[in-house]
Amino acid sequence: MTSREPRVGERMGVVTLVGGGPGDAGLVTVAGRDAIAAADVILTDRLVPRAALAWARPDAEIIDVAKVPGGRSTDQAEINRLLIEHAKAGNDVVRFKGGDPFVFGRGGEELVACADAGIEARVIPGVSSAIAVPAVAGIPLTHRGLVQAFTVVSGHVPPGHPDSTVDWAALARSGSTLVVMMGVRTLDAIADALVDGGLDPATPAAVVADGTLPSQHVVRADLATIAAAASEAGVGPPAVTVIGDVAALDLPGLDSGHDP
Amino acid sequence: MTSREPRVGERMGVVTLVGGGPGDAGLVTVAGRDAIAAADVILTDRLVPRAALAWARPDAEIIDVAKVPGGRSTDQAEINRLLIEHAKAGNDVVRFKGGDPFVFGRGGEELVACADAGIEARVIPGVSSAIAVPAVAGIPLTHRGLVQAFTVVSGHVPPGHPDSTVDWAALARSGSTLVVMMGVRTLDAIADALVDGGLDPATPAAVVADGTLPSQHVVRADLATIAAAASEAGVGPPAVTVIGDVAALDLPGLDSGHDP
Repeated sequence: MTSREPRVGERMGVVTLVGGGPGDAGLVTVAGRDAIAAADVILTDRLVPRAALAWARPDAEIIDVAKVPGGRSTDQAEINRLLIEHAKAGNDVVRFKGGDPFVFGRGGEELVACADAGIEARVIPGVSSAIAVPAVAGIPLTHRGLVQAFTVVSGHVPPGHPDSTVDWAALARSGSTLVVMMGVRTLDAIADALVDGGLDPATPAAVVADGTLPSQHVVRADLATIAAAASEAGVGPPAVTVIGDVAALDLPGLDSGHDP
Repeated sequence: MTSREPRVGERMGVVTLVGGGPGDAGLVTVAGRDAIAAADVILTDRLVPRAALAWARPDAEIIDVAKVPGGRSTDQAEINRLLIEHAKAGNDVVRFKGGDPFVFGRGGEELVACADAGIEARVIPGVSSAIAVPAVAGIPLTHRGLVQAFTVVSGHVPPGHPDSTVDWAALARSGSTLVVMMGVRTLDAIADALVDGGLDPATPAAVVADGTLPSQHVVRADLATIAAAASEAGVGPPAVTVIGDVAALDLPGLDSGHDP
């Protein structure tokens, strides 16, 4: 354990946000691995590739912030507090996050918190689950001649919710492949909103659960039935849903890389 | 040079598509680096991080397919032919591509070509320029309370073109951050189509050129003036354009990782 009490005049540590990618440790970046290997303190999430923690120094302090005490709404403030406290104590801190820190990852809030506290912070982007999870399941989000755009949308705030900033009817007409993250529980409402917005109920759809992990499984149906099919298959988070013509593709030979 | 003539009964090589990320070699994945280090033959693009080729074996054959002879439309067929020829000769081949192989990367076509030829192929996803380039320029594509979706769209086929599958007016109303790839030359037409579709001309916009590289530069304006501002600044490909409220953000302390 190298976490130390602050000493007067000592240099402050640097905070590095590292994107962990979708789950396979081989999909962490080279710069991300170097940052993990050099860190004094590592704050990890629930969804990071655990095997990547083997790259840490034997004396590094690893803190699983999924287990940080406090209610759900206070977690982020507590994480920010820990980042600042350890950096102020002179430790180089890695904030190791699932996926990409900036795709629904609240990385921006952590950067601002560090800056406000006078702590130097930097980001090493990760492989985004939104793109890589469909890819390793054989579904490219774009395909020449088929589609020229894709939209990644959070299902955490469902259609019609007062906090929603998304016009689902416009998305239904946009012609882009739709990728729904964090939408297992709201998939039924999302599919309804898209059909109401004019998207063909027969549009291909696929849910990829545990993407890039050995437990990966894919449920395929059409837009009208995908929520029921995923529910019947017992799909739970984390899962990525793809809606659009590419969801009917099943490209050969896809693989996720490998563990270190 | 390990490229060999095929021998009867010899095992065929495996083709691995490796996403090279936005430009900084530190943003190649650990699995991608391992594949490069193990390859007999490497086919590279113009936009891959060149420093990553230092990981190749001294006896690996490196082929820059940007220099492959043939007209523009025949390039992909020639690349497919080279992948298959070298794999059939018993070589493990890495196809090293800029960005992510499946985000406008034609990775799907290369996989299908390999499968049709009986060659085993796999994909190691990369960090997508669409997400990472804005991130390292201080622009998160999603930000809590501000936006819950982002759309990545190719500007290669402009609005109104008969090959376009995108409803730009619907995108204008979708409420999602818009990320335009390969849109330097068509940005004027895209901005016009979005304004015609109802997007506020005062919407913040930013063009990030040479993202994650030492030559990175960012041009900020509003939707109405971004094309002229980018043109005045002399921006050329590769560049990523972000349109939406997040384009006005400039988060502190962002960095792209580092070269190996």
